[in-house]
Amino acid sequence: MNPFSDEKIVDSWSKNITPWIKAITNNEIESRNGITDKAILMEVINRKPTKILDIGCGEGWFVEALTKKGIEALGIDAIEQFINYAKNNRKGKYQLLSYEQLSEGLKGKLFDVIICNFSLIGEKSVNQVFESIPSLLNKKGTFIIQTLHPLFANEQTYVDGWRKGSWKGLSKEFMDPAPWYFRTLSSWSNLFNANNLQLSSIFEPKNETTNQVASIMLIGGHNK
Amino acid sequence: MNPFSDEKIVDSWSKNITPWIKAITNNEIESRNGITDKAILMEVINRKPTKILDIGCGEGWFVEALTKKGIEALGIDAIEQFINYAKNNRKGKYQLLSYEQLSEGLKGKLFDVIICNFSLIGEKSVNQVFESIPSLLNKKGTFIIQTLHPLFANEQTYVDGWRKGSWKGLSKEFMDPAPWYFRTLSSWSNLFNANNLQLSSIFEPKNETTNQVASIMLIGGHNK
Repeated sequence: MNPFSDEKIVDSWSKNITPWIKAITNNEIESRNGITDKAILMEVINRKPTKILDIGCGEGWFVEALTKKGIEALGIDAIEQFINYAKNNRKGKYQLLSYEQLSEGLKGKLFDVIICNFSLIGEKSVNQVFESIPSLLNKKGTFIIQTLHPLFANEQTYVDGWRKGSWKGLSKEFMDPAPWYFRTLSSWSNLFNANNLQLSSIFEPKNETTNQVASIMLIGGHNK
Repeated sequence: MNPFSDEKIVDSWSKNITPWIKAITNNEIESRNGITDKAILMEVINRKPTKILDIGCGEGWFVEALTKKGIEALGIDAIEQFINYAKNNRKGKYQLLSYEQLSEGLKGKLFDVIICNFSLIGEKSVNQVFESIPSLLNKKGTFIIQTLHPLFANEQTYVDGWRKGSWKGLSKEFMDPAPWYFRTLSSWSNLFNANNLQLSSIFEPKNETTNQVASIMLIGGHNK
């Protein structure tokens, strides 16, 4: 298997289901707890949506959080163990679907907000998500991506490309980190434009004490 | 005079008119020649505009370049020596106007493209430019800012604020560099939203040989 491929991402994640569920349930990831989880929750809730789609929902914490607030939330993930865990342990609806199957698997459904919370880390798979959004997003709907900030995530040249992954800051149970595909800001912006979507704002959640930026949020919708 | 103020920016520039005109006329600024000048010219020309406004036009090279292509271009600047030089030496139309006087001074005029090419370096003055844009921009018009990329321009914490200026890479005739007000990406994005404008794409001109990013272009229009 190509160590820098979308296929390898799914393979790596499949090997880390147990420690990941433990890390999320025990709040082991500092930047998530304090900053990025709250930031995406607020961005979504402030829009008062009725129906939400969480693409790459993992073990389902976000879908559960929204469901508890009375919002109809559906989580999809390509990894069966995550979907099984979520169905058995989390409130909300879950469906096993790869990013490639999105349009077909959710045909006819429309969402007010679609989020990808640290779940767009591949190459072609990310293009496929973007291609699916127009058919799944309500006319006035919002597409929200939270991801590694290209300002602070980039250790090499500022050019799109595959990077080695790391489980830095997580427990020793984690193994074989997934690679990820770095994108410059303009490449993210182009993904919106190329798919008849429009990037409309950028938000940078940060640690209010240290002023350190924790992530970037790219917020957009249909091209008008 | 406060060394970190909009007033100080105009004061510093006023002391460097002669070396600046020399630098531009002799193509002394490498990143401009090779990359950023071409990038903004292409962004503008590709839109096939009829009427252009260049805010902070300086000695007028850009207005002249557009005028030579048959586009009706108006340059405004707060510094009288620049406007006098441009009127006497450059093709195109020029008007002495501070950023504060924009709306009033150009009342009733509408432009297809409004550009600010490395000319939004202040604090309140930049807010004033943004406040003026909605009344000066055609319904389907485009507002293009080219500026220092916050990824590479930031030497301190990633927080909005005044920074010391520098004439790095320029001749020894330059003195008393103008301070500038650093803005994070999300602050730029907020400026669009706060003024009923919409950021619609981001472009990062770069040196194709070294892959080094030379600037950021923030492109937007009316909120729809």
